[in-house]
Amino acid sequence: MSRVSSFLSFSLTLLIFLHGYTAQQFPNECQLDQLNALEPSHVLKSEAGRIEVWDHHAPQLRCSGVSFARYIIEPKGLYLPSFVNTAKLSFVAKGQGLMGRVIPGCAETYQDSPVMQQGGDMHQKVEHIRCGDTIATPPGAAQWFYNEGNQPLVIVSVFDLASHQNQLDRNPRPFYLAGNNPQGQVWLRGREHQPQRNILSGFAPEVLAQAFKIDVRTAQQLQNQQDNRGNIVRVQGPFGVVRPPLRGQRPQEEESNGLEETICSARCTDNLDDPSNADVYKPHLGYISTLNSFDLPILRFLRLSALRGSIRQNAMVLPQWNANANAVLYVTDGEAQVQVVNDNGERVFDGQVSQGQLIAIPQGFSVVKRATSEQFRWVEFKTNSNAQINTLAGRTSVMRGLPLEVISNGYQISPEEARKVKFNTLETTLTHSSGPASYGRPRKAEA
Amino acid sequence: MSRVSSFLSFSLTLLIFLHGYTAQQFPNECQLDQLNALEPSHVLKSEAGRIEVWDHHAPQLRCSGVSFARYIIEPKGLYLPSFVNTAKLSFVAKGQGLMGRVIPGCAETYQDSPVMQQGGDMHQKVEHIRCGDTIATPPGAAQWFYNEGNQPLVIVSVFDLASHQNQLDRNPRPFYLAGNNPQGQVWLRGREHQPQRNILSGFAPEVLAQAFKIDVRTAQQLQNQQDNRGNIVRVQGPFGVVRPPLRGQRPQEEESNGLEETICSARCTDNLDDPSNADVYKPHLGYISTLNSFDLPILRFLRLSALRGSIRQNAMVLPQWNANANAVLYVTDGEAQVQVVNDNGERVFDGQVSQGQLIAIPQGFSVVKRATSEQFRWVEFKTNSNAQINTLAGRTSVMRGLPLEVISNGYQISPEEARKVKFNTLETTLTHSSGPASYGRPRKAEA
Amino acid sequence: MSRVSSFLSFSLTLLIFLHGYTAQQFPNECQLDQLNALEPSHVLKSEAGRIEVWDHHAPQLRCSGVSFARYIIEPKGLYLPSFVNTAKLSFVAKGQGLMGRVIPGCAETYQDSPVMQQGGDMHQKVEHIRCGDTIATPPGAAQWFYNEGNQPLVIVSVFDLASHQNQLDRNPRPFYLAGNNPQGQVWLRGREHQPQRNILSGFAPEVLAQAFKIDVRTAQQLQNQQDNRGNIVRVQGPFGVVRPPLRGQRPQEEESNGLEETICSARCTDNLDDPSNADVYKPHLGYISTLNSFDLPILRFLRLSALRGSIRQNAMVLPQWNANANAVLYVTDGEAQVQVVNDNGERVFDGQVSQGQLIAIPQGFSVVKRATSEQFRWVEFKTNSNAQINTLAGRTSVMRGLPLEVISNGYQISPEEARKVKFNTLETTLTHSSGPASYGRPRKAEA
Repeated sequence: MSRVSSFLSFSLTLLIFLHGYTAQQFPNECQLDQLNALEPSHVLKSEAGRIEVWDHHAPQLRCSGVSFARYIIEPKGLYLPSFVNTAKLSFVAKGQGLMGRVIPGCAETYQDSPVMQQGGDMHQKVEHIRCGDTIATPPGAAQWFYNEGNQPLVIVSVFDLASHQNQLDRNPRPFYLAGNNPQGQVWLRGREHQPQRNILSGFAPEVLAQAFKIDVRTAQQLQNQQDNRGNIVRVQGPFGVVRPPLRGQRPQEEESNGLEETICSARCTDNLDDPSNADVYKPHLGYISTLNSFDLPILRFLRLSALRGSIRQNAMVLPQWNANANAVLYVTDGEAQVQVVNDNGERVFDGQVSQGQLIAIPQGFSVVKRATSEQFRWVEFKTNSNAQINTLAGRTSVMRGLPLEVISNGYQISPEEARKVKFNTLETTLTHSSGPASYGRPRKAEA
Repeated sequence: MSRVSSFLSFSLTLLIFLHGYTAQQFPNECQLDQLNALEPSHVLKSEAGRIEVWDHHAPQLRCSGVSFARYIIEPKGLYLPSFVNTAKLSFVAKGQGLMGRVIPGCAETYQDSPVMQQGGDMHQKVEHIRCGDTIATPPGAAQWFYNEGNQPLVIVSVFDLASHQNQLDRNPRPFYLAGNNPQGQVWLRGREHQPQRNILSGFAPEVLAQAFKIDVRTAQQLQNQQDNRGNIVRVQGPFGVVRPPLRGQRPQEEESNGLEETICSARCTDNLDDPSNADVYKPHLGYISTLNSFDLPILRFLRLSALRGSIRQNAMVLPQWNANANAVLYVTDGEAQVQVVNDNGERVFDGQVSQGQLIAIPQGFSVVKRATSEQFRWVEFKTNSNAQINTLAGRTSVMRGLPLEVISNGYQISPEEARKVKFNTLETTLTHSSGPASYGRPRKAEA
Repeated sequence: MSRVSSFLSFSLTLLIFLHGYTAQQFPNECQLDQLNALEPSHVLKSEAGRIEVWDHHAPQLRCSGVSFARYIIEPKGLYLPSFVNTAKLSFVAKGQGLMGRVIPGCAETYQDSPVMQQGGDMHQKVEHIRCGDTIATPPGAAQWFYNEGNQPLVIVSVFDLASHQNQLDRNPRPFYLAGNNPQGQVWLRGREHQPQRNILSGFAPEVLAQAFKIDVRTAQQLQNQQDNRGNIVRVQGPFGVVRPPLRGQRPQEEESNGLEETICSARCTDNLDDPSNADVYKPHLGYISTLNSFDLPILRFLRLSALRGSIRQNAMVLPQWNANANAVLYVTDGEAQVQVVNDNGERVFDGQVSQGQLIAIPQGFSVVKRATSEQFRWVEFKTNSNAQINTLAGRTSVMRGLPLEVISNGYQISPEEARKVKFNTLETTLTHSSGPASYGRPRKAEA
C-alpha cells in the first residue's frame, strides 16, 4: 500500500513538475487565452523608498520578452547608482527630482568652478526630471535618481530582455554600484534567499584599496557590508550636486569635446506630458503622444519606443493592433475598460485596468480602451524603435484602405452597410463612447 | 501484477513523452540526419479555395526557423484580408489576380473619380499579380488576394519565424480581419479543436458599433459568426475595385504625398519569371534569377530574399551551399533529382522532388539538383536579405579560389589531377548532366 | 523487492536525467555562481597538428553564446579548407604562416604570370600571418592555414553561436571541404562516434565527376574516404603558392575589379601586437590595443571585436565591466591573478589563469586582473562590434562621473574620503599593484 501511494505521489509530483515545466517551456509560450491586469509581485523595501518588481515569468510578460519595475523614492531619497544588462526605458509617473547617468569615458562636464578647488566637484551630466519624462538608458550604463520634491518620486521602467542588447539570459539583472538588496533577487529562482550585494563587495578589499589608492578601511566601507539601508537611501543634509537651471531655461548646448558630440552628449530624455506636442489632440477627448527614434535617436539603438495617452471619461481609443512590436501598458491615473483580442479571435481580456496596474498587449493582438474615470492616463512601452499602430476603425484604418467590394463580400453585407462601416467614423484614433461601463459578455466563447 | 503493468505503462508513456520532448527541444535541433520532400500536413477548406499548411514542427523547417503555406484560390475567389506576426515572402506559382495590401495611415490613392461620390470608392493600392510575382509583406500589414482569371490562383508563402520581426513565439499566427477558419489553427498544439474567428468577433458588438458608428446588428455581421465560408469566399457579381491597367503599361509614378514617399509607396513586388532579367542564362540549360535587397529595398528590412530557377531535362545546378542563410525550395513545375549533404559529410537527402513539394536546405548544407523532367522550375526563399551562394565546382567556385598546392595536398592527387579539378568546369552555375536519373547509392554510409 | 528497487532505480535515473536537463535548459542559464579557468575538453589529432576544442556546453560559454577552439599546426602543416556556420574571429597566438580565405564569386587576383600557362596557377588572396594577427571570417567562407615557419603555428578562434549570422542551432559546425575528422564531432551529442567526412564525400562520385568534369576515380579521391590524416596534413615538398612579400612591404592596393571593391577586397586582418598602435600605453606597465568596427569595418557585420593586452609583473588592469558584450579571455603568455564578480555581488572567480587557459566574462560582470608572472599577455574576444568597457576606478571611471554627494551618501563615508575614492587614481586603465599574489579570501560569502 505504501509502495503504491509512494509511487502515486512520485508520479503526481513528476507530472506536476513536468506540467509546470512544459507549460513554461513549450514553444507555444505566446498561446495566450487570458491576460490579466498585473500588479507587482515583489516589494524591496529600502530606507527611503521601495522597488516594486513585476514577475517576469507571467505568461504575458514572457511572451512580450520584457520585465517591469516601479521605483518609489521618498523625498530626499537617493536611488543609488546601478546598471542593468538590458536596454531600459523609464517614465516618471509622479514627482520630480534629479537624474544622473554615467557613461564611463565621457568627460565630467558639470563642474562648480572653472578650476578644481578644495570643496568643489566635477561630474557628468545631471538632469532635472519631472512627471512625463521618458528616459532611455543603454545596457551597462550606471544611473541614479534623487527626489528633491515634497512628494514621492515614482518611476516605472521596462527592461527589454529579448533584444540582442541583452547578451545574458532572459532575466533582469540589476548590478549595484553602491547600496545593496538585503532581500535578494527575489524574482530569480535560486536567488530568493541570498542577499544581493553591491559589485564592489565581491572584490577583496585589498584589491579595491590598490585600485582606488585608498586605505583598506575605506575600501571595506565601499562594500556596504554592514549597511542595511537597501538601494534607496536618505540623504543627510543638503544634496549639493552641480545642476543646471530647471528646464525651460535649459541651455540647448553644453560644453562639448569631440567625444561628447557622439554618445556622451546623446540626448536620452524627452517629456511626453505636454499636450502642445501631442500627435493626436482633441480638446474634449484627450491626447496621445509618441516617442520614437525620429524624436530620440538613441531609441533606434535601443529598439524601444513609448506612447503617452490621456483621455477623459467615456472617450474611446479606437480598436487597434501593434504591427511590429509588443507593448506593455501601465496606468498612471484613473481607470479604463479594456478589451483585448488574440489571434484566434478570442477576447482574452475584458475588464478594468486601474492606476498602478500593468497589462501586456502582444504583437497583433487588438485592443480597445474606454475611460471609466474622470481621467485615464497611461504610458505604453513598445519593443520597436518605430512601432506601428494599425487601427480597425476610423479615417486612417484598415477598413478605409479596403475596397468596398472586399468589405461587402467579406462580411456579407450590402454595399450601403459596407459604406457605413468604411466611412462613418471620421476620427483617426479617439472617439466619443456613450456605452455602459461594461458589456458583461463572457470573455471566451466556450466559457 | 496490475501495479507492475500500470507502472510499466506509466514509465513507457513517460519515456515516450520525454523522448518526444527531448527530440524536439534539445539544443541540437539542427542535427539533421535525414531531410524529406515535404507535402502539406493540413488543409483548410474554404468556399472558394483552400489553404494548405506545412507542419512547421518538421525538424528541417524548425531548424530553418520558417513556416510555409500554399493558397489555392479558385476563379472569383477572394482571400479575405488577414495579417501575420512575421515578415512574409510570397510567390505566385500559378494564375493571375489582384492583390491589395493595406498599410494603415497611408492614403487611399486609388479612387474612381476625383470627387468622392455616391457609389464611388477610394482605397489603397491594388496591384495585378501573375505567375512569377514575388511579394514582400511586413508583419502586421493586412493583405487580400482576388482571382480574376479562369484557372486557380496558387500562391506560396514563407513566414520567417526566427527573425526579430516576429516578436511572438516561433509559431505562425494569422490574424483574420474578416472570414474565419472553422477547423481552427490545426498546426498549433491546443488550438486544433477551436474554430478560429476573425478578430472583430472578439470584441463586444456594442464596442464595434461605437467604434464604427454603426448599429449593433451590422456590428454583429462584422463578426462572421454564422459564416462558414472560411477565409476564401466566392464573390457574387462583378468585383468592381479601382485598379490600374495591366503591368507593362503600369505607370512608374503614382500620385503621392509626403508620407507615401516613404513606407506607403515602397515597392513590394517584383517578377522573377522574365528570362530577360535572369542573373544566369544559358539558352540550352535554363536560367536563374535572384531577388534581394538591392532589387527590392524592403527586403533589407524583412531580411528575406528569393531565387527563381528554371532548368531543362538533364541540366544540373552545380553543387553549392548557402553561406549566410537557410533556404526553402518549393517546386512549381516538373521534378528533379536532388542530393543534400550535411556538416558531417553525410548525404541527408537523395531523391526526387516534384511539383508541389518542399525541401529545406539549412545554412552550409551542400546541394546539387538535376532536372529529370522536361522542365524543372522552382523558387527558393532565403532567410537573408542578401543571401550568398558558394559553389563547389565551376568558374567562380571555391575550388578555383584555392591554390593548386592546397588541392593536391588536400586530396592526395597529382598536380595534373588538381588542375583538372580546378579548371575543367568552365560554367559558373549550370552545366549539362548526362548521367542516369539516380545513382542508387544508399543515403548514409552506415545505412 | 525487485519491483521496488527497479522503481527506485528508474526514479533515480529519471531524476538525474531531469536534473541534468533542467540544469542545462532552465532559463536561468546565466545564473553563474562560479566561473572556471577552462582548458580544452576534446583533442582532435591530425597528421601535422591538432585541433583542441573547448566544451561549448560549459555554463559560462553557454551564457556567453560562443564556442572556442585552438589550432596547433606543425611546421609544414596545412589546415585544409573548411567553413563554419558562424561568424568567427581568430588570433594568431604563436608562429607564422600563410592564410587563404576563399569568397566564391570573387576573382582569382593572385597569379604567377600574366597569362595562364602550363604549370602556373591563379587563386584568391593569400596573406602572411604572424603572431598578433586578428582575423575576421564571415559564416560560410572557406579558409585554410599553412605553417611555413619552424615552430608550431597556434591560432585560437571564437565562434559566435548566438548571433543572427548563425542561422542553425547553437552548436559549432565546421564543414570540411577536404580532409576529414576520424574522431567525429565529439563536442556534439550523438555525433561522438561517427567519423566526420568532408562534404564532397556525401555526394555520389558520379555527381562529382559530372560537376567537376573529371573521371569517377578522381571524384572518389576528392572524398578522402581512405584518408586518415585528419584535417591538418603534412605538405610534401615545397608549398608553391603565389604570395605577396612579407608585410611591411605589403602593397596597399591590389589589382581590382568592380566586385572586389566591395566584399572581395574587404580587409579582414589586423595586427594587435604592435605597441606603437596601442590604445593604452605605459612603458613600465604594459599596453592594451583594441580592434573594433572603426578599425576593421567587416566587424560591424560580424558583431565581434577584440582586445589585446600585455602587462608586466604586478601591473593591474583596473576593475571594469563590459557594458554591451560578453567577453572570452584567452591567455597567450604568463599568468595572472583574476577576480570576477557577478550581478549578485559574489566573487565567482578568484584565482590564477595561465597560458592556454580561457575564461568567459559575461556582460556586466566586473573583473580585475593582476600579472603574477614576468609578462602576462592575453586576447579578449567580445560579442559586440563596438564593445564598451566601464571602469570602476580611475580617471575615466564611473566614480569620476558621480557627484561627491552620491558617493558619500552611498557608501556612508565622509566628503574627504569620497574625494579620495573619486580622485586618487589618476590612471585610466593600468596601474601598479604592490599586493600579495593572492588574498586568500573565500570565493563566496557562504563558502
